[in-house]
Amino acid sequence: MSLGVIELGLALMTRWEPDAKGRLTKAAIELFAERGYDETTVSEIAERAGLTKRTFFRYFTDKREVLFSGAEQLAEVWVAGVAGAPAGAEPLAIVAAGFEPLAEIFEERLAFARLRAQIIAANPELMERELIKLQGLAGELKLALVARGVALDAALLAAQAGVTVFSVAFARWVQQDDPEAFRRLLAVSLEELREVVTPSR
Amino acid sequence: MSLGVIELGLALMTRWEPDAKGRLTKAAIELFAERGYDETTVSEIAERAGLTKRTFFRYFTDKREVLFSGAEQLAEVWVAGVAGAPAGAEPLAIVAAGFEPLAEIFEERLAFARLRAQIIAANPELMERELIKLQGLAGELKLALVARGVALDAALLAAQAGVTVFSVAFARWVQQDDPEAFRRLLAVSLEELREVVTPSR
Repeated sequence: MSLGVIELGLALMTRWEPDAKGRLTKAAIELFAERGYDETTVSEIAERAGLTKRTFFRYFTDKREVLFSGAEQLAEVWVAGVAGAPAGAEPLAIVAAGFEPLAEIFEERLAFARLRAQIIAANPELMERELIKLQGLAGELKLALVARGVALDAALLAAQAGVTVFSVAFARWVQQDDPEAFRRLLAVSLEELREVVTPSR
Repeated sequence: MSLGVIELGLALMTRWEPDAKGRLTKAAIELFAERGYDETTVSEIAERAGLTKRTFFRYFTDKREVLFSGAEQLAEVWVAGVAGAPAGAEPLAIVAAGFEPLAEIFEERLAFARLRAQIIAANPELMERELIKLQGLAGELKLALVARGVALDAALLAAQAGVTVFSVAFARWVQQDDPEAFRRLLAVSLEELREVVTPSR
């Protein structure tokens, strides 16, 4: 039996569900917002999405992951932006080269991002997880800067500063109603960071 | 029976141990470094310090707290530095006004700080706790800046930047041998942050 046949067999056993991951994510976010994160079970999420628990576990290891599975894509897009930034800029500008592609992805997700932010803010355990994810993101950005020849400590400082700018802009974005404002808020927060660290004359 | 008499009674029941907290901390750090954090028990820490488990729990809620009980003092000293900074400086300079008193406290503790950093770096759970403590510190600094009239987002950006500078300087300090170098490393890291965020011409 060739590998192709095995794969076909697996595909037939696994009923294909159109956008199962998206439906599960939407159902989970709705339930977390309605009933609270702690009170929501995986069974309820699957039921709301019209899918089985087994399907849920094909996409997520647990209900918490529904809120954090986007972190890999975020890191990937941002790191690619850093890798492709023009040469000669200061380290924070290299980090900020990822803002444009990030804004493009995020502007389709304001409603989701806002609900997610509210759910996380209401739960200390989720806030800790978010913090750890952001720290991991800063670590990846640091490595991307080092790969571009930035010295280790300078890379760490610039990566952390970039993640701080992103977090501040993100918090502002979910508190207003224009999905396309994220780009501008990133630029505003970046400028504000530069101002708060620059000695006044 | 007056409150004073009750207090006297409690003081008599509680045998006074000279610098029990310091002895327990020293014993814990030594054991964590020798055997590993996970492998060390509170009983062993108390025994090494020549004290009882009961005495241990008078000072710490668990063995993890031995590593993090200094965080309150750190925050207190730093926030006092921010509150007492001269007016008119940019927000990050106000945050950095806490560096001088911090350096004074820390320079007596290089050996401890180095062992502690190694123990924490070897244990993901402790690294998460450290991250959360630093985030709490940034939150306190932000409030101290807001109390001085700095706008909320600017305060958050400056507080986070200050904590990043502190962390980078701290990591450098425990990797070298001069206890008094912390002051200089804080200044160097601060300057470096300013450089990485300033647009190159």
